[in-house]
This record gives sequence, C-alpha cells and structure tokens, in this order.
Amino acid sequence: MRSLKIHWVPLAIVLAVFVAACSGPELRATGDLGLVIERADSSALIIDTSARTRLARVTGLGDLSHASVVYSRDERFAYVFGRDGGLTKVDMLTATIANRVIQGGNSIGGAISQDGALVAVSNYEPGGVKIFDSGTLDLVADIQADSKTVGLVDAPGRRFVFGLYDKGEIWVVDMSDRANPQITKFKNVGDQPYDGLITPDGRYYLAGLFGEDGMALLDLWNLEGGVRRILGDYGKGQEKLPVYKMPHLEGWAIADGHAFVPAVGRHQVLVVDMATWLQVATIPVYGQPVFVMARPDGRQVWVNFAVPNNGTVQVIDVPQLKIVKTLTPGKGVLHMEFTPRGEEVWLSVRDLDKLVIYDTQKIEVLKELPALKPSGIFFTARAHRIGL
Amino acid sequence: MRSLKIHWVPLAIVLAVFVAACSGPELRATGDLGLVIERADSSALIIDTSARTRLARVTGLGDLSHASVVYSRDERFAYVFGRDGGLTKVDMLTATIANRVIQGGNSIGGAISQDGALVAVSNYEPGGVKIFDSGTLDLVADIQADSKTVGLVDAPGRRFVFGLYDKGEIWVVDMSDRANPQITKFKNVGDQPYDGLITPDGRYYLAGLFGEDGMALLDLWNLEGGVRRILGDYGKGQEKLPVYKMPHLEGWAIADGHAFVPAVGRHQVLVVDMATWLQVATIPVYGQPVFVMARPDGRQVWVNFAVPNNGTVQVIDVPQLKIVKTLTPGKGVLHMEFTPRGEEVWLSVRDLDKLVIYDTQKIEVLKELPALKPSGIFFTARAHRIGL
Repeated sequence: MRSLKIHWVPLAIVLAVFVAACSGPELRATGDLGLVIERADSSALIIDTSARTRLARVTGLGDLSHASVVYSRDERFAYVFGRDGGLTKVDMLTATIANRVIQGGNSIGGAISQDGALVAVSNYEPGGVKIFDSGTLDLVADIQADSKTVGLVDAPGRRFVFGLYDKGEIWVVDMSDRANPQITKFKNVGDQPYDGLITPDGRYYLAGLFGEDGMALLDLWNLEGGVRRILGDYGKGQEKLPVYKMPHLEGWAIADGHAFVPAVGRHQVLVVDMATWLQVATIPVYGQPVFVMARPDGRQVWVNFAVPNNGTVQVIDVPQLKIVKTLTPGKGVLHMEFTPRGEEVWLSVRDLDKLVIYDTQKIEVLKELPALKPSGIFFTARAHRIGL
Repeated sequence: MRSLKIHWVPLAIVLAVFVAACSGPELRATGDLGLVIERADSSALIIDTSARTRLARVTGLGDLSHASVVYSRDERFAYVFGRDGGLTKVDMLTATIANRVIQGGNSIGGAISQDGALVAVSNYEPGGVKIFDSGTLDLVADIQADSKTVGLVDAPGRRFVFGLYDKGEIWVVDMSDRANPQITKFKNVGDQPYDGLITPDGRYYLAGLFGEDGMALLDLWNLEGGVRRILGDYGKGQEKLPVYKMPHLEGWAIADGHAFVPAVGRHQVLVVDMATWLQVATIPVYGQPVFVMARPDGRQVWVNFAVPNNGTVQVIDVPQLKIVKTLTPGKGVLHMEFTPRGEEVWLSVRDLDKLVIYDTQKIEVLKELPALKPSGIFFTARAHRIGL
C-alpha cells in the first residue's frame, strides 16, 4: 500500500504539469479579427467578423480616449496608441499584452512602416515622433520636432509623414536605413496643421489647418514640387461657426475619382475632384460630419456626426451624390469600420454600450453585440493597407 | 519491486498520450502567408513573406497546370483550382488537405464570394459554373451554361461574373439568396470571350475576345447600360501575328487613373485612360507581355513575357510611362506577386526551380528560395481584396 502512495503522487503531479502545458488558445487564423476600443475601461474587445462574435477582452491598456491601432504585417499583433503615451502590443491569438511601454506623455496616434519592422508614435508632450522596433518595442529613433506632431501616417518607401502643429510644417522621414533617418522638411505649409491623411495609394498627403482655411497638399511622388495649398474655402470660414468636433481626416473617403470631405462646422459633405483638387459638389447632410468613410468598393459613403446629432448615420450613393438612407443606431455613434471587402460595416454606439453590424447592401441590421462605451473599431485587414 | 512495474507502466502510457495530445502545429497568424504552385509535382509550398522562408510543402493537389487559388476570409484556408477539375481546400496552419472534391472535368479558375461563404468554379468540361459552400465544399448551385466558362470573378453584392466562350455572352449571378441564384445574361458581347478581369474596386468587368479585336466592358454599377465595346484595335489585329501566349487579363494593372494592358502579339504595353476607355499611350517592351502588374501603390508596373523572352522582367515607372529597369531573373518567369503593401515582390522562375524576392524600391534581389517548377504565387492578403 505504501508503494501506491509513492507512485501515484508523482503520477498526479506529472499529469497536472502536462495538462497545464497542453491548455492554451486553439489554432486559428487572424484575417477576420478586430479590436474594439472600450475607452472608459482601459480595455479592448477582440472580435471575429466571420462569426460576428466577441472572442475576448484585453484589459490594462491605460487611457484610451482618442486611441488608435495598427497591426503587424502577419495580423497577429495590434499596436494600441493610448492618450497617456502608452504603446501596447496586444497578441490577438492569446488575448494578452505581449509588451507595453510608456513612450511619451501625451500620444495621439501612430503608424507602422510599410515593411512592418517599425512602429512610429506622434506626441503632444513632449512633442516629436518616436520610432520603435515592432518586435521588441526598443527605441530606434527619437525625432525631436520642438512641436506637437499630428497626422502621422506611413507611406511607401518605408517613410513616415506628419505635421508640426506649432510650426506649420510637414516632415517626411525616410527610414530605409533605420540607423540614419533621412528627414525632408516642408515649411510654411499653413497655420496649425491639426490632422492629416494619406490617399489609399500612398501618393498624396493632405494636412487640415486649424488656424486658417484651406489645406496643404504634398505629392509624395514629387517632393521637389513642394507643398501646394488647395480648397481655399475649406475650414471654419469667416463666420467662425461653432465647431463641435473637428472632423477626422483619416475618415476621408476616396471613391470614383472623388474625395468625399467632411465640411468643418457646416452640415455638408464636400465632393472634391482628385484630378484638379477642386470642389465639384456639395451634399447636404444631417449634422456636422465627423467620419466620411467609403465602402471598400467605393459605391457607398457612410457618414456619422458630431453632437448633438451623433445618434444618426447617413449613407450616400456615390454615382447619385445623394443620401439614400438615414439610420438611427442610437446616441453616440463614434466610429465605423467596414469588413475588408465591404459586405458589412460595424458601428460603435457608445451611449448604448453596443456594437451594431449592418449588411451594407440591404442596409439592414444583422446583429448587435454588447461593448463597454465602445469607440474605435480596427480590423486586422488594415495590416495589408497603406496609411492605416 | 513488482509494485514499481505495475505503476510505472501506466504512467508511461499516460505520458505518451499527453505528449501526443500536446504536439501539433504552433500558434501563428496567417496574414503573411502564401502558396506557391509547384505545377509538375501536384504540390504547393506554404511560404512566409515576413521571414522570407518556406514553411511546408502540401502534396496530392492533382493536375496544377494553370492552377489558381483564392482564400477564406479569415486567411486560414486556400482553395486550389486544378486543371483536372479538382477543388482542394488547404489548411495553411496545419499544411494539410482539409477537403478535396473533383467537381468537374476540366477547370480553369474560380472565385470566392464577397462574404466568403461560397466558392465558384468555372469549367471547360462539362462547361458551366458550380458553386460550393466554402466550409463543407457541398454543392450549392450548378449553373448550366452549355458553354466553356471563362474569366470567373467575384463582385460586390455576393455576385459572380463570367464569360461564355462558345456563346459570346457574359453572365452575372447574384447569390444573395443562395437557394435562388439570380442570373442576368448579356448576349452578343463579342466572339469567343477567352478571359476576363474586374477592376480592383469591383465596378468594371472586361472580357478579352479571342475571335475578334476589341474588348467587352460591363459597368456593374449600371447593368441596365449593358455591355459596351471598347479598344476596337485591341487584339491580334489584321496581321494575325503569331501569339505565343494569350496575355492574362487578371494581370491588368490599374494605376494613376490608367489601365496598363498587355498587347496581344505585339511587344507593347498599352496605356488606357479609365475615364474614357481610350488608349492614350503605348510603351515598347522586351517581348510579348503576359502579366502586367501594378505595385500596390501604383507607382510601378512590372511586366513578364511569353517565350522566347520569358527570362526577362521589366519595370515601368508610372508617372514617366517608360521602362526604368530590365531584369533577368532566369528562364521561365511565370508569375509575380507583390507583398500586400508593395515593398517586395516574389517571382517564380520555373526553369531554374527557384523563387526570387526583390526589394521593389531599390529593385534589388533580397533572397532566393528553391521550389519545384514554380508557377502561380498567391499571398493570403488576397482574402481581403475584391476580384482576387
């Protein structure tokens, strides 16, 4: 009998060890995953766009007001840029934090290089841009700008582009040689660039100006051509309308040779001919537009609005240049994200603590999911796209 | 002592069982994977574009001459369309065949629906198109066409579009209700459509004609508008030049508002203005072009050629509309695939049994990998794109 004790005890221990080693996340692919920011709880939901389900919640992400996300080129890791300067690397397969650094005092956005090797973060405090190794999060370059930096995007050629709010400049940083960043500076681009975007092909960088009307345009295929001023009427205008929220330029829609642009302060979406960069049409909408986003096939443009109209979403039919549907998902629609090929779109409805999924062809609700004060929605397919 | 035997034997068995349960493929993401067809060996390589390595070889895929591949929306499964009518579902994570059916006698291509739920295959024998559930490979619809079907692509709105070679027709099949396919037929589109393509936004379908010059154009945003004939001079022409290989229309490049089109029989790439569908320029090239492919940012177009010039590849600079580099990777360059954001391109060099990976900015070789008579290269990022 004593021998039983002697032998069965180690057996039990050995089994326990093996069970622990075996347990763990099941094999799965990452092409249909996404992250939903829960801004009030320092957390994010990992979601599955095929099953339209929630897979897990990741906590401990810090201050997520105005948070944004980019993905590693294999679509495994999400890099979450928090308002508190936190850069968190989330493992989408294990739903754990792989790494986290506090890289600055007040961060407002980031980007990942074309080859996926570098992650860049723009900072209000202390200003400038820091560039990290995407694998280790080790600092690779610390670009002092003596200014808040805004509108940071990646561009082809392993470059990053951003604006200097306090200096009225646009900088292009070439990281082809990570040990020797090459910086091209464009001065006097306009007063207080507050945000920027890059066209989906990575060719044109546009900066919105807070201090004056008009926008700054840089053709990255022709840096020698310098920065042009376009859309001279674009902005708050002479009347200085109350602007409840400056529109997100990331949310510009490019469709059918036109850019669909949220007017500042006005209840309008502006249509700009991308060949001439002249405004060719104005579409009246329900409120002050915040995000103006094209379905991936460019046939529809979806628009959400600033308070007090943020309970409504409108759908523009691109060939007709008019609203074809007005939706009321609920108060606090903060963000929209289309599935990669556009058959569905996910909306964050903050005040109702839910996500609403629409079929974009029938424009009908397919499903709702609970989420804690959801804001930004970011699908892994962004890993394969320029400027996202 | 006997008690030791009695107890340690079951312990050993239990351990063996647990070890077996634990072994198996490691957790990994799928966004940077790809499949390389090894046409002579009924096999395919699974490759990793981040590490630039070969991960595994999958065998037993049947006749892979003229094979093509599409991916499930989560980027886990590759659907391989074989010449022998085989439809094989390959698990990219386990490098195994998840399912395989012989769906026809002679298949030449396939497509996956916008929502990823359906896989369609076009057949020479017995003709028509068969549509399968992408999960089970169960037959969902058998569309009789009484003709070889060609140029099968997916389109937004859960539609498939293809040409009828023997009837000179284009059909659009709406699978929104999988139990009741809705077919729209366009007749007299031209003599012997032999291939087709859809623009990256999923709006325009173009069919190449073998029996006459010119192409058939269908605007999927305006089916009522019917099929237009464009590029009346496009084709073999009056001289009936010897055509060593009909160019692949899948390889049309769309960049900077132009379509870059392989001339048939001539040593030319034709430049077409997509606003007017008129030819606006001609670029002389080294041989009869086969694939004319745009780097994802549209700044470069890479061209390979038919025998006897298939050892050469040329690079066109889009703004200049001229050749900026001529490369000689080796005899038998059959296909090219860009990484999703365009920093690198992989080439199949059949006669030298290798893959060659180029940096597209420096246009320099980064690495070579062995492969058995490689032909088509297909990266998982195609899962997120319309018409691929």
